Amino acid sequence: MMSDLAIRLGIIGLGAQGGYYAGFLSKDRVPNVTLAAICDTDESKRAAAEAYGVPFFTDYLTMLDSGAVDAVVTTVPHYLHPEMGIAALDRGLHVLVEKPVGVYTRQARRLLDHAAARSDLTTAVMFNQRTNPLYIDLRELIQSGELGRLRHTSWIITTWWRPQGYYDQSAWRATWGGEGGGVLVNQAPHQLDLWQWLCGVPTSVFAKLAFGFKRDIAVEDEVTALVDFGEGATGTFSTCTHDLAGTDRLEILLDAGKIVVDDSTTVTITRLSAPEQEISAGMSLAEVRRLFTGEGDTSKYVSVTTTTYDSPWTDQHPAVLQNFAAHALDGTPLIAPVEDGIHGVRLANAIHLSGWTGEEVSITDFDEDRYLAELNERIAREGTFPTREGD
Amino acid sequence: MMSDLAIRLGIIGLGAQGGYYAGFLSKDRVPNVTLAAICDTDESKRAAAEAYGVPFFTDYLTMLDSGAVDAVVTTVPHYLHPEMGIAALDRGLHVLVEKPVGVYTRQARRLLDHAAARSDLTTAVMFNQRTNPLYIDLRELIQSGELGRLRHTSWIITTWWRPQGYYDQSAWRATWGGEGGGVLVNQAPHQLDLWQWLCGVPTSVFAKLAFGFKRDIAVEDEVTALVDFGEGATGTFSTCTHDLAGTDRLEILLDAGKIVVDDSTTVTITRLSAPEQEISAGMSLAEVRRLFTGEGDTSKYVSVTTTTYDSPWTDQHPAVLQNFAAHALDGTPLIAPVEDGIHGVRLANAIHLSGWTGEEVSITDFDEDRYLAELNERIAREGTFPTREGD
Repeated sequence: MMSDLAIRLGIIGLGAQGGYYAGFLSKDRVPNVTLAAICDTDESKRAAAEAYGVPFFTDYLTMLDSGAVDAVVTTVPHYLHPEMGIAALDRGLHVLVEKPVGVYTRQARRLLDHAAARSDLTTAVMFNQRTNPLYIDLRELIQSGELGRLRHTSWIITTWWRPQGYYDQSAWRATWGGEGGGVLVNQAPHQLDLWQWLCGVPTSVFAKLAFGFKRDIAVEDEVTALVDFGEGATGTFSTCTHDLAGTDRLEILLDAGKIVVDDSTTVTITRLSAPEQEISAGMSLAEVRRLFTGEGDTSKYVSVTTTTYDSPWTDQHPAVLQNFAAHALDGTPLIAPVEDGIHGVRLANAIHLSGWTGEEVSITDFDEDRYLAELNERIAREGTFPTREGD
Repeated sequence: MMSDLAIRLGIIGLGAQGGYYAGFLSKDRVPNVTLAAICDTDESKRAAAEAYGVPFFTDYLTMLDSGAVDAVVTTVPHYLHPEMGIAALDRGLHVLVEKPVGVYTRQARRLLDHAAARSDLTTAVMFNQRTNPLYIDLRELIQSGELGRLRHTSWIITTWWRPQGYYDQSAWRATWGGEGGGVLVNQAPHQLDLWQWLCGVPTSVFAKLAFGFKRDIAVEDEVTALVDFGEGATGTFSTCTHDLAGTDRLEILLDAGKIVVDDSTTVTITRLSAPEQEISAGMSLAEVRRLFTGEGDTSKYVSVTTTTYDSPWTDQHPAVLQNFAAHALDGTPLIAPVEDGIHGVRLANAIHLSGWTGEEVSITDFDEDRYLAELNERIAREGTFPTREGD
């Protein structure tokens, strides 16, 4: 039974990520969550689980049915998140899925549908970077409307350097059938989520991807995407895993100001004295001429603030878990409800599809059947893992 | 007659730019060029020309035939550069065309063909930013091969803010028939040239353009382009004229290093201790694990240098003019030979065509007939200026 003070959490998958969760939970880092059970198909993990003093299961359904847990977190390969989440919901358990909520939108939607049908339960996704005060402040600023509507945005996020040895750790990594993609599915989902959380959901995308560009892998290690937000607003998103001098730079241009974020820590906000089009329209020809003879001065129209945030890495996962439990216990609003997770999956799928087909791909009216067919073609050609069902 | 020491230059077009040339020439800023004549179709410019103490013409052909000049510079609307350049070459005069060398590739090629046929004469283009020591140093570094081959590049160049009053100055400005485009044709040609001068010529482009997005004009004031350089190397180019807090940031990622340029003055060069793929392949699994537990250290593989250059704006135009004259006088190699100008025109045309059609457009095999047909359709719809001939 769930107490009023804490939920009993089961971890499905004691790999690197599951071990990280077990570690901070065993140190009581999350006051309203108790580590209650651990599941891993690998029997050799039993000793590690028992060291935490909790029951160990090799079959996750047995753990779900054991009565030992009120909730689960899925720290398993991405393809498994939806089916495990659904099985837990069907048994009346709360679910926190690791990102991404699924590899392709059809399986992600199945999870969302189940979550919607069980709104008495809490279903959330581990978008830990949403707890970063920097992005919370920016979202509030943009949502307030003070800076007006979006004009353009770009994110160069190439700090995801991964050497060949990283990919060689497990057979499922960086394969179509085992992981479902590369940097778009594993590393960049954080930024794909934050970008849309801040700037809105794009309507279409054209992308160039390179597969096994600088690593011996089947999937993409280099991505350049151009998105359309409608009504003239556009954006670019670039990521890769082969830039040792990685860049993290986000720009957001709006009608009455501009936001530039460097290294996810330094925020420069330029506020205009009026909406830009008003300044443009109100400038006399004489003033325009002064501007172009070097005597003009546009600085009177702008005020700039720069804020540096502490890096909050160590608290992000515990904070999302605490929020998840608080929602289950008393209805505290969720930081990352599961339904938000579909946007990043769809954008990643659309970027893949554009890269595969060479065509601009609609996100608003995304062709998920075509995506799955193209993905299955690659899984079949790879020949190591089973193709995926459409539902 | 041309002396051994200086060429006699005629200026065609005494607008803002022509006036600027006349100004620095009359102050003897270019030792091997003498201001010798001025032409403008506007009779009211006669007094200004006479103040410089040189003959004034209202017909440029009369000036070319007068014997008063050895060379001309074309500071006139972009469409006129090729035909005026050709007329001068046909009369045995050297030609410096303002950028761009033409609005569309067919007319630019005609000029290039004439220039090639008269290799005894000097034909160059005013890419003044090529004289910036920053870009000269970067080009030398890249050409040396020390940093290896290109992987990715991006240029956000939105420092071209232009208020509505700027566009309202002349009827030809920011029209299809009078100017042939917006920011791609007027402001960004500098960067379109430098980008290719540094990174090579792309093979294809997909672009989103917004026409009259934040200004009351027919042409583009917002451009986002994604280019392919072949073999997995890609790039993005973003520009606009409505960002009061404009960004100028160029990134170039190569196999053994990375270049980041901020504000065209600060260059950060990261050199790797070995080609990136060698570092990746040579990293042991234990080292990979240390990296991901926060105990790793990639800094031993990189060395970073930052150099800040003085802004060289005031000397650029005189320097190109001096180089142009030196080539005519003694064969000094040209900074910006006219044939280099075609690349920027083709890239701008291809970006337009992609924006108009919604398709990815080949640059290697550029369909210039289709471009001209699409351009003429817009000129005809505008109804103010004549459509353009194909040759």
